[in-house]
Amino acid sequence: MTEPMNRQYYLASRPTTLPTPSDVPFRDVPLPEPAAGEAIIRNLYISLDPAIRGWMSEANNYIEPIAIGDPIRSSVIGRVVKSCSDLLREGDIVMSLGGWERYTRGSAATMTKLDENSGIPLSNFLSVLGPTGLTAYFGLLDVGRPLAGETVLVSAAAGAVGSVVGQIAKMQGCHVVGIAGSDEKCDWITSELGFDRAINYKTCGDYQAAIQQACPQGVDVYFDNVGGEILDAALMCLNKFARVAVCGWISTYNDPDAPGPKNLWQLVAESVTIQGFVVLDYQDRFAEGVEQLASWMMAGKLRFREDIVDGLDNVLPTFLKLFNGSNNGKLIIHNPE
Amino acid sequence: MTEPMNRQYYLASRPTTLPTPSDVPFRDVPLPEPAAGEAIIRNLYISLDPAIRGWMSEANNYIEPIAIGDPIRSSVIGRVVKSCSDLLREGDIVMSLGGWERYTRGSAATMTKLDENSGIPLSNFLSVLGPTGLTAYFGLLDVGRPLAGETVLVSAAAGAVGSVVGQIAKMQGCHVVGIAGSDEKCDWITSELGFDRAINYKTCGDYQAAIQQACPQGVDVYFDNVGGEILDAALMCLNKFARVAVCGWISTYNDPDAPGPKNLWQLVAESVTIQGFVVLDYQDRFAEGVEQLASWMMAGKLRFREDIVDGLDNVLPTFLKLFNGSNNGKLIIHNPE
Repeated sequence: MTEPMNRQYYLASRPTTLPTPSDVPFRDVPLPEPAAGEAIIRNLYISLDPAIRGWMSEANNYIEPIAIGDPIRSSVIGRVVKSCSDLLREGDIVMSLGGWERYTRGSAATMTKLDENSGIPLSNFLSVLGPTGLTAYFGLLDVGRPLAGETVLVSAAAGAVGSVVGQIAKMQGCHVVGIAGSDEKCDWITSELGFDRAINYKTCGDYQAAIQQACPQGVDVYFDNVGGEILDAALMCLNKFARVAVCGWISTYNDPDAPGPKNLWQLVAESVTIQGFVVLDYQDRFAEGVEQLASWMMAGKLRFREDIVDGLDNVLPTFLKLFNGSNNGKLIIHNPE
Repeated sequence: MTEPMNRQYYLASRPTTLPTPSDVPFRDVPLPEPAAGEAIIRNLYISLDPAIRGWMSEANNYIEPIAIGDPIRSSVIGRVVKSCSDLLREGDIVMSLGGWERYTRGSAATMTKLDENSGIPLSNFLSVLGPTGLTAYFGLLDVGRPLAGETVLVSAAAGAVGSVVGQIAKMQGCHVVGIAGSDEKCDWITSELGFDRAINYKTCGDYQAAIQQACPQGVDVYFDNVGGEILDAALMCLNKFARVAVCGWISTYNDPDAPGPKNLWQLVAESVTIQGFVVLDYQDRFAEGVEQLASWMMAGKLRFREDIVDGLDNVLPTFLKLFNGSNNGKLIIHNPE
């Protein structure tokens, strides 16, 4: 039997627009030995998130940029194949910060053990019970702080974060309006997820008029994943003391010359708060979040879609689906054993 | 004796850049009679604030735009000359929302009586004990929420708001850095007001480098009166969980094509909160604010400058001093009896 090799998709150059195969080529390298305290996992699921595009750039960010030559960083679920730690045994399933690679080596202390036999599909721990679900949970409840009867507007509303935001907002008794990029997505969030209204931003024409029509009482909380022109339009529809929760601006990631929002004057005109956040800010409350999300999920109150694509070698073209909206739910690479 | 006439500077057309005498001409009109519940006051002091420029535009704002044909709105202190209300008597001194005019007619219930013999100069109720002092007080303590040992950066730091912000921040035990537009102003805020460092933005060169040098621990609270390029530079110097308090963006008021900030990505990178506010949001706490500001003033802990210009007919050229920074403290028109 030959020594297993580790296929890695790594950052060869920093993309300025959409990343290409020359920015993110692959290499096959020997599997390293774990040092004391480390484990090596065989990655089974790799999470593809818009944030990864930010880490490819050298701009200041909430975690270090990916270094040139390093594998593309992402959340993964894998099976331990070698362990030099008492914390993990061969065969354990863990969630970890890993990469676009077949095997990841890391400190066992930073890996979270998952129960393979809980009845919950492992991929759920990268979606509704993972970073995107937790982003929605803390971002809406802690940053957006919606009150019953208020209007919550969500962009990228059929996405992994936005779809959960809208459903939690409905549970808070809010009027919930989602913005998405196809009639099918709009139909899904209203018919299946219980959003009150949906706006197809590709066909609605004037964004501001469309938001005003869907939010006749104005907007109290805007959960913004998108930025750009939709943010500018939403700013014009905010009520006094509205909150804007921002966890990313996907419309700007591949456009270094994207202009800043024009309508920020609304902050003063309506005493608005715009708050940026990342899910890592809430690390010490993850257990609370997962427990609540899981209980809603078990009770059938939280629906979600996962768009699972087989094969590590599909990772880059699959990642790019995030930026044209052609993904259909939380995007995950499955790389079966 | 002839019937007294009321000279009014009124909005004839909405300026797109700096207002000109043709945008704000004057007229002499007969003094109206007060209706039941109203009083007429002879304006003695007229407050000139950057916010007034915003009210001249038709953009959405925290109060209605000034209607075409109406006197320019501003805070005033005046003496009651006629009253049709039990609340006020002829001779009383009041603070009120008034206008750039010799006499203002208004509801007596909205006028606040002041004690002419308290030993506090009346003009102080338009500056340190008035809207600008209260803006500083609530904006810093309630929106900025600085902790002892944190770094507070203030733009327009020699202005009526910024100078008070910096002194209150020093009382909170903060490292305080001010940005101002002349060496004289920089000298005043450090030597007289106790700011730790000052940046002359007209001579410092690269804003970001200058802020980084003056704030070696980064910026935790940025109190922003200015917007534009200085905001963009300050955004790059913010610490994790920094707060940006915004009560106006004077650099943009006379430039309808001013681009939006380029560095808002810092909101997500550093989990920053930008909060817009206006002093009217705190109306139910004005008494608390005035009491605290007055006690600091009496104790010699709060210094301030007033730039008082005599003569209603100087109102427009005096107002324009705000926009080239040639005022020297809180700008007030004095129109003696």
